[in-house]
Amino acid sequence: MHLIDLIARKRDGGRVTPAEWRTFATEYSAGRFPDYQVSALLMAIFFRGLDGEETYALTDAMLQSGGRLDFAHLGRPVIDKHSTGGVGDKVSIVLAPLVAACGLAVPMMSGRGLGHTGGTLDKLEAIPGFNTRLSAAAAVAQVERLGCALIGQTDEIAPADKKLYALRDATATVEVIPLIAASIMSKKLAEGLGGLVLDVKTGAGAFMPQLERATLLAQTMVDIGERCGCPTVALLTGMDHPLGVACGNAIEIEESIDVLRGDGPADTREVTLALGVEMMRLAGVASDARAARKLLEAALADGRALEKFRQIVEAQGGDPRVVDDPQGILPHAPEQAVVVAPRAGVVQRVEPRVLGRGIIALGGGRLTMDDVVDPSVGFRILVRPGARVTRGTPLAAVFARDQATLAAGQACVLEAISIGENDVRVPPLISHRITAHGVEALGQG
Amino acid sequence: MHLIDLIARKRDGGRVTPAEWRTFATEYSAGRFPDYQVSALLMAIFFRGLDGEETYALTDAMLQSGGRLDFAHLGRPVIDKHSTGGVGDKVSIVLAPLVAACGLAVPMMSGRGLGHTGGTLDKLEAIPGFNTRLSAAAAVAQVERLGCALIGQTDEIAPADKKLYALRDATATVEVIPLIAASIMSKKLAEGLGGLVLDVKTGAGAFMPQLERATLLAQTMVDIGERCGCPTVALLTGMDHPLGVACGNAIEIEESIDVLRGDGPADTREVTLALGVEMMRLAGVASDARAARKLLEAALADGRALEKFRQIVEAQGGDPRVVDDPQGILPHAPEQAVVVAPRAGVVQRVEPRVLGRGIIALGGGRLTMDDVVDPSVGFRILVRPGARVTRGTPLAAVFARDQATLAAGQACVLEAISIGENDVRVPPLISHRITAHGVEALGQG
Repeated sequence: MHLIDLIARKRDGGRVTPAEWRTFATEYSAGRFPDYQVSALLMAIFFRGLDGEETYALTDAMLQSGGRLDFAHLGRPVIDKHSTGGVGDKVSIVLAPLVAACGLAVPMMSGRGLGHTGGTLDKLEAIPGFNTRLSAAAAVAQVERLGCALIGQTDEIAPADKKLYALRDATATVEVIPLIAASIMSKKLAEGLGGLVLDVKTGAGAFMPQLERATLLAQTMVDIGERCGCPTVALLTGMDHPLGVACGNAIEIEESIDVLRGDGPADTREVTLALGVEMMRLAGVASDARAARKLLEAALADGRALEKFRQIVEAQGGDPRVVDDPQGILPHAPEQAVVVAPRAGVVQRVEPRVLGRGIIALGGGRLTMDDVVDPSVGFRILVRPGARVTRGTPLAAVFARDQATLAAGQACVLEAISIGENDVRVPPLISHRITAHGVEALGQG
Repeated sequence: MHLIDLIARKRDGGRVTPAEWRTFATEYSAGRFPDYQVSALLMAIFFRGLDGEETYALTDAMLQSGGRLDFAHLGRPVIDKHSTGGVGDKVSIVLAPLVAACGLAVPMMSGRGLGHTGGTLDKLEAIPGFNTRLSAAAAVAQVERLGCALIGQTDEIAPADKKLYALRDATATVEVIPLIAASIMSKKLAEGLGGLVLDVKTGAGAFMPQLERATLLAQTMVDIGERCGCPTVALLTGMDHPLGVACGNAIEIEESIDVLRGDGPADTREVTLALGVEMMRLAGVASDARAARKLLEAALADGRALEKFRQIVEAQGGDPRVVDDPQGILPHAPEQAVVVAPRAGVVQRVEPRVLGRGIIALGGGRLTMDDVVDPSVGFRILVRPGARVTRGTPLAAVFARDQATLAAGQACVLEAISIGENDVRVPPLISHRITAHGVEALGQG
């Protein structure tokens, strides 16, 4: 196979066969196809797209390029969740122990923060001693024992995707729905799942802000999952403002523990429960949504979810006292300030992208994968769009490591939170449910 | 400047500024932009195109990336011709000495054969001793002394184009009109010309077979020339069948000498004269086309064109006796055969691409730039489309280095030359003249 023939064919609107995608993934991850040809192919795909069969074939080829976790012997439903990412999205940290406490096995493989979006691994590593770099074997053993492991992507998983993702990042070919879908799904399907739930964010702070494109991405991933024999359900959830109150690594762990304790912000809890319901249904441990929700609420209320989280923290080398005394165990930012409303009115917007960039300015995020993250810094956002404020109402607390970044963080809050006169229509938190059978509008507020 | 921003902008249909193209050409030729980003940009250009200003700016940037020939001191009109290439196209070898004999200065920089099209340099090197690798200084000195040099592209000329062309070749981004135009014109304009004539081939054997695309390519190049202050005229000439009789390196030199002597096939002579007329008019040495043609015909008739060729051959180390005794000096193929018509009828097609590939099979062409060319092999095509033949009429002579390739060459002739019953409409040899003022249909038969 000559790669230039594939480039020319895709450029002219033709199709690449499954066998060709397999050769592509194998040869490219072995370093036998030059990046300069692959990037031309990627740009041709940007313009010509991939149909459903090609997208599935590429996903499968990238999946086959590496190893997989094997849970065939487990005898328990293995289900995972993936989120396309946002600001304040700490759902995985609550959800994984919660559903594990309800009998599911969850090999949750997460990523790190990059750009304006945070990453679950960075948040977990705010817990002193917590180790996310487990081998595949250690992760499988922990899932067998505790029903859950919270880990990073191992080197064995989808090496073709790893190379391709880095190249897309350097060649302006990231925002291509079939490539995004194939990248996510090749990694998730390597976990040997019996079902997958997707949290596809929409709105200003989402990777894919427009509802139509987010819907298409969700449909594409659901389609790949079905073709691979892994039942997949997606929820579209709002990212027009940050999820919950805490935005930053350590303080998001604190909020996660609040939710695991049965408290916490209503929206963080609601998104977690909605995704949990889908996982429980895919696992077949609850007959319907109502039954599933009751099981989950019970596990939050009676402390089983929190206890499961304690076991996971301990198993992965973290300080388990964080569960009882998060403020005492998690790192503290030396500088703090509260930003108040400069005028009376209605909160118009709380811009997640501005706050996400603010976290980077505070030292708590990454512009490149080499940046080191300070877990202690961040924001607590005290208002939502639509809230009425008077002059002096607290808008947000800023946590910083020094006076200079504190001032930058305060300025960032005033840029992100705009106050006006108009009433604000708040978009639904969970707007659509997407399965192999179609798109269902939910419209929950 | 971050190259990824340019890629994203071009991908989304935006424009790249002249200053950005300059930075691009400088940094890329210095090896500071990676090929994998540049190839993504090239593929984005394939889909989005470049407008006239961008095409000119890219051409100028590539031109500025290298050195130029300087003829400012010459006091004579410096004019060149460029052909987009075909099979049997030996026009440069006749035309350069012919117009030099009429007082023009012609620094003719040519290329080598690749794929089905031949190259002027390979043909010239069929003359024992002929050296096409002159330095820029030696070429300038020879043009001063003789009015003409027949040379290859020097390393100083448009290095950004050289790298870009190699990358396009490997990434299926060759057939992009603004990139083709910028590549050709950046090299030609480095010759320090006062005017340029373009021979843009159309028809089955042309690089750009469709008339519309060939016209657009010609217009794009004429536009660049005008923007650079180099008056440029293009003729669209037919490449539905090979030009002239000889197809192959040594035998095309033989045909060229025939034409320089005032003989030779009518079509080779006609295309040469038509292009020569345009060069003479651009140089201002003839008041109109008729006067120009008379001057050229006189130089062919009285031996001045041939004498100029002899001087050039001698100056560049070649054996000047080739002019008087081409058969005695040029290399001979050991094996020869004549292919005759297998049936009576009308010649429907003489496929240049099939014959071009046949020359490669005979060892006289190149699939890659590393292939070594045998100058002695080739075809003499004895019929044209529309010719009536009977069974046994000679169609072509094949010149080969051994019996095996001779047989392949014979088969190739029978594949290339089809005989049928229908009358054949022969497209015009020189169909259009394109200047800054517009497209003029000529319709010469």
